[in-house]
Amino acid sequence: MFSYRCTSCGRDYEITSHLFSCSCGGLFDLKPYEKTFDTYSLPWSLVRYAKMLPLFGGVDLLKSVSMGEGMTPLVRDKTGGYLKLDFLQPTLSYKDRGAALLVATAKALGVTSLAIDSSGNAGVSVAAYARRAEMLAHVFVPETTSDKKVRQLELFGAKVHRGGDRDFASRTVMEYLETEKDTFYASHIYNPFFTHGVKTLFYEIIEQLRDDVPKNIVVPLGNGTLVLGAYEAVADLMELGVISNPPKLIAVQAASCDPIYRLVHSDRLTQRDLDSGSTIAEGIAIPSPPRGSQIASLLLKNDGDVVVVSEKMIRDAHSKLLSAGVDVEPTAAASYAGYLQLRDSDGPSDTTVVVLTGAGLKSL
Amino acid sequence: MFSYRCTSCGRDYEITSHLFSCSCGGLFDLKPYEKTFDTYSLPWSLVRYAKMLPLFGGVDLLKSVSMGEGMTPLVRDKTGGYLKLDFLQPTLSYKDRGAALLVATAKALGVTSLAIDSSGNAGVSVAAYARRAEMLAHVFVPETTSDKKVRQLELFGAKVHRGGDRDFASRTVMEYLETEKDTFYASHIYNPFFTHGVKTLFYEIIEQLRDDVPKNIVVPLGNGTLVLGAYEAVADLMELGVISNPPKLIAVQAASCDPIYRLVHSDRLTQRDLDSGSTIAEGIAIPSPPRGSQIASLLLKNDGDVVVVSEKMIRDAHSKLLSAGVDVEPTAAASYAGYLQLRDSDGPSDTTVVVLTGAGLKSL
Repeated sequence: MFSYRCTSCGRDYEITSHLFSCSCGGLFDLKPYEKTFDTYSLPWSLVRYAKMLPLFGGVDLLKSVSMGEGMTPLVRDKTGGYLKLDFLQPTLSYKDRGAALLVATAKALGVTSLAIDSSGNAGVSVAAYARRAEMLAHVFVPETTSDKKVRQLELFGAKVHRGGDRDFASRTVMEYLETEKDTFYASHIYNPFFTHGVKTLFYEIIEQLRDDVPKNIVVPLGNGTLVLGAYEAVADLMELGVISNPPKLIAVQAASCDPIYRLVHSDRLTQRDLDSGSTIAEGIAIPSPPRGSQIASLLLKNDGDVVVVSEKMIRDAHSKLLSAGVDVEPTAAASYAGYLQLRDSDGPSDTTVVVLTGAGLKSL
Repeated sequence: MFSYRCTSCGRDYEITSHLFSCSCGGLFDLKPYEKTFDTYSLPWSLVRYAKMLPLFGGVDLLKSVSMGEGMTPLVRDKTGGYLKLDFLQPTLSYKDRGAALLVATAKALGVTSLAIDSSGNAGVSVAAYARRAEMLAHVFVPETTSDKKVRQLELFGAKVHRGGDRDFASRTVMEYLETEKDTFYASHIYNPFFTHGVKTLFYEIIEQLRDDVPKNIVVPLGNGTLVLGAYEAVADLMELGVISNPPKLIAVQAASCDPIYRLVHSDRLTQRDLDSGSTIAEGIAIPSPPRGSQIASLLLKNDGDVVVVSEKMIRDAHSKLLSAGVDVEPTAAASYAGYLQLRDSDGPSDTTVVVLTGAGLKSL
């Protein structure tokens, strides 16, 4: 019923193949499958959307792996927009949506050991769900990863492989997978089950706003997981007639690390510093996103946009959220900064939802 | 419609009186008010139970103060019990339920400045909601409060008064209130609106388990907020016929700080060290709870119980939760330790829910 499908050449692969990209080099999505937009009222978790998800291992397996991820609050902001507090999940980031579905899939495949390269929340999330599902998680992180994050990974029983920069972690995990053939690559970037977990975030926004389909949805943009998830959700909901006008997606990058902005707005580039710098928003500090061109194409094709925000704008946005009682990590503050910029330039806007991705305590 | 009622002499006081205890010295509850157990499907927040709550300022005020607290997951544990992940709320502890309702009440009273003494999560929660509602929060904390917690309070714009021990903080806030007559005492211990916010936690458990009313509910016990909230909820649901058999409440104290255990089990005390020591579970490190005798009476009257757990049991319980993918702070681990002890002594038990109160990152 479910298969991987190459986004480049269209070839299908069995889920049991353990492959994570096509022999043509293309990246995977899933082959279209049947969906129904019936929601379950209980339990309060991703299971709510079981009839919309690719449950390779069935709903009971998802129930056993689930820790109640999803069903996060949507809160009105003083500016008139809505904040989606999507960090109120078991490991305190939106990644739990993707990790729950991906780890449930791995469990159905009989996986006992998995690997992921991540400098941040995805690693912690996959480690926690893997631990729950009784798998050993190997997490490859750069040398610069904070001791606190390493400690969190270790608390969940993960084997941490630390060293080099972010690219080194990506290369090392690939080498590891070459030698350890039984290890499953639980990548939040390569594996489409992760994306299909993340798409539930956008189902929720539509449910929570009822008849008021949002005009804009603002998300932070690093590897593009949220952009992929959003467009999967929009495609599903359009196809099933749940919505008729798709919201516009606004993806936010840091001015100092804006590879996808450059792809989307190559005409606007003038004297910008082409050597990307660093940003406090570590979740979007991704200079070479593997799916970068796919994300840029999706945004261009669907009338989405990318905006950039400065470090000062991120700090100011963080302060503004705090004055509304909401504490988030810098990556989520960047999302809000993008929203504020949009609002300042366009005047009072139509319904806009800002996705807040990680809890403040993650960076305190 | 709403009044304070003294739990000792029964005298009623206007909510507008700004008093926080009776002239007889008794502590306040609320005078009974009309309730209906109709839930709202939206928004996903405390507003769900608006028809059960003492909304002194009306539902729209609660909506504006709310940050989507409540509606937390209930997750099946491998042991067969259920974990209520009640730390998945805006400031990452269950206190947000109480703070939302208490701050909404203060807002309705026209309060611009409030004070609270707390060594922990209640202070952070009240500070966040006060900030959102545009009030200045004065938070009185002991000298031993961690720098991290002080930083959190400051992030939310609170004025932190730090010094002495926990009792010193309580005395100092009282002195402060004596001189600053316009400051509202937003105490999670004295003010019953806080308790009435907390009771929603138990409505949720009943809703989430549907027809399977839990036999036991396990909560950590420091000042007794959860015990008060649980019995308020049980009384409401019994009165309205939603449940017919009340669950048994099991409250957990640290063996090294067990004042309410001693009140409840005075007959069992033998050679126990009567000089309470310290515990890593800071949320229940309360040697002299102001409502101690009220809490003990409630437990005795309602066939509840208090159990004590050692520091080693707390650490072991924390490890066991981590191996289920769930990271909590030590106070929540103490709750799980109490459950494990109960389970070991009673064998496989009927439906039991363990309330987990604070996120692990709070103490990492």
